[in-house]
Amino acid sequence: MKMQDKNALPIGFAAPAPIDRWDQTRADPALLAKAYADPRARRLVLDGLDPLLDGGRLVREPMPAGADPAAHILLGRESDGVPLFAELRRDIPHGATYAPRVWEAATELEPGELALYGGTRSLVDWHARHGFCAVCGGATVVAKGGWARACTACAAEHFPRVDPVVIMLAEYEGRVLVARQPRFPPRRYSALAGFVEPGETIEGAVARELFEEAGIRVRDVRYVMSQPWPFPSSLMIACTARAEDDRLTVDHTELEDAFWVDAAGVRAALDGEEDAPFVAPPSMAVARWLLVHWLDGMATRP
Amino acid sequence: MKMQDKNALPIGFAAPAPIDRWDQTRADPALLAKAYADPRARRLVLDGLDPLLDGGRLVREPMPAGADPAAHILLGRESDGVPLFAELRRDIPHGATYAPRVWEAATELEPGELALYGGTRSLVDWHARHGFCAVCGGATVVAKGGWARACTACAAEHFPRVDPVVIMLAEYEGRVLVARQPRFPPRRYSALAGFVEPGETIEGAVARELFEEAGIRVRDVRYVMSQPWPFPSSLMIACTARAEDDRLTVDHTELEDAFWVDAAGVRAALDGEEDAPFVAPPSMAVARWLLVHWLDGMATRP
Ligand SMILES: [Zn+2]
Ligand SMILES: [Zn+2]
Repeated sequence: MKMQDKNALPIGFAAPAPIDRWDQTRADPALLAKAYADPRARRLVLDGLDPLLDGGRLVREPMPAGADPAAHILLGRESDGVPLFAELRRDIPHGATYAPRVWEAATELEPGELALYGGTRSLVDWHARHGFCAVCGGATVVAKGGWARACTACAAEHFPRVDPVVIMLAEYEGRVLVARQPRFPPRRYSALAGFVEPGETIEGAVARELFEEAGIRVRDVRYVMSQPWPFPSSLMIACTARAEDDRLTVDHTELEDAFWVDAAGVRAALDGEEDAPFVAPPSMAVARWLLVHWLDGMATRP
Repeated sequence: MKMQDKNALPIGFAAPAPIDRWDQTRADPALLAKAYADPRARRLVLDGLDPLLDGGRLVREPMPAGADPAAHILLGRESDGVPLFAELRRDIPHGATYAPRVWEAATELEPGELALYGGTRSLVDWHARHGFCAVCGGATVVAKGGWARACTACAAEHFPRVDPVVIMLAEYEGRVLVARQPRFPPRRYSALAGFVEPGETIEGAVARELFEEAGIRVRDVRYVMSQPWPFPSSLMIACTARAEDDRLTVDHTELEDAFWVDAAGVRAALDGEEDAPFVAPPSMAVARWLLVHWLDGMATRP
């Protein structure tokens, strides 16, 4: 897999969404009013935060007569020029964790529709959890077409979160490190991951997480690809790194187990073989494509 | 400049901070109490959000007798094993914008100290602006050694923000695109930049921003390096991309001007020559190192 090809991979949520985000419209009250008043306007129909499907696409409906603009986000403009909205509600559960309905939908939705769903889920969830101002505790209202909230008391503006997370494969002499968390399905192992903290580079976060969770020191951190992950609003930044040695000190408050696996073991896991040393992450997860990327690199190495 | 060398570059805020972030201590109330009670414990002394310097280092002082743990963040453990804190205050201005005192300090601080300052600034600013719960409006209190805030009313946990921003050089036939915002110093041009939005990949954000701000379509987006930028809490993700053609449609609500510049022009700007076509960004900014990276690549291209 070459770097240039990564956008062609079926990484969940990472395809280009089939909309123009239309950012100049969000920021211009006159254009925004026009979009809301467009009689062709549609909105996505969600079930709480879960997707509703119409074949390979998300369900859309005409904007109901009398719909309140302040209770909607302008997602953008579809390829036929029609504005697309999503309803903002407060009575929905927080989408911090992986949702089974999304897992099912991911196998049926067209890649662009899955990406559209992912971004929408993050935004709808963020609004549901930000009815109040963190600065002063006042009530907030939808602003900039749903791309911000404004405080009615102190006028502070608040913007949706995107939380960068590093996810990485450490390599040592032809083997890579995979690990499992207690909440994973049986025998599933994946790449290690963790949030980038204030003051860190991507490379620094990769090195810190691998040391904290597995006790290994690394060098040559390399970026491979990225993926939005809407549980609730992560940006997964996938990297590889070279370990200085293979002695592990596993942090059992974070990980149930971790081990080094060679190319044959990774290939067996990706092929879903019964005697594979672990069960690989699903294609929805960038961790699977990190393993594919590493295996491809091994195959072409002199 | 090879990818592996990038951590050796003097990119402001991007050096490894000279502390162990000590994450297991944050999460363990007993270890945390021990750190707070350590008679050797120190704290950084800031002037609001601005740094105070002692030569090339940040000013530290012993934790005052009777200091309230709930008004401090545990930054980590210094190389001599001593816990390092920073005071969390509400009476400080928001650090959303570039600060002249930081600019001055950046030239005097050791690189690791500048990185430590950057992360601390983001964290102290985040606490100052998050005294209330976005979910319910209730009061929040310091949790996990300052790495979270907890709501006293609904128990929601809130975590410091890190906002990913893409910053990128588009290239077309031996020239790169530089642009200036109205707020820049005279003749200063830099790389284009913008926040990654919910639902986007890094590559998608680069392509969208270049199209929105300059009207160009790109392919072959490549990651180069990253930098924390504490105004207030950005993670700058620096990339290059290839433009499909060189026709510009500049968004004048965002940019004052943009133009394509060749290698000789970039070199003259980096060298600070008087007749250079623009004034290059300072070494504190990753944009300067993107230009250096591009020029190095041009020099070695067949
Ligand atoms: Zn407010
Ligand atoms: Zn609350």
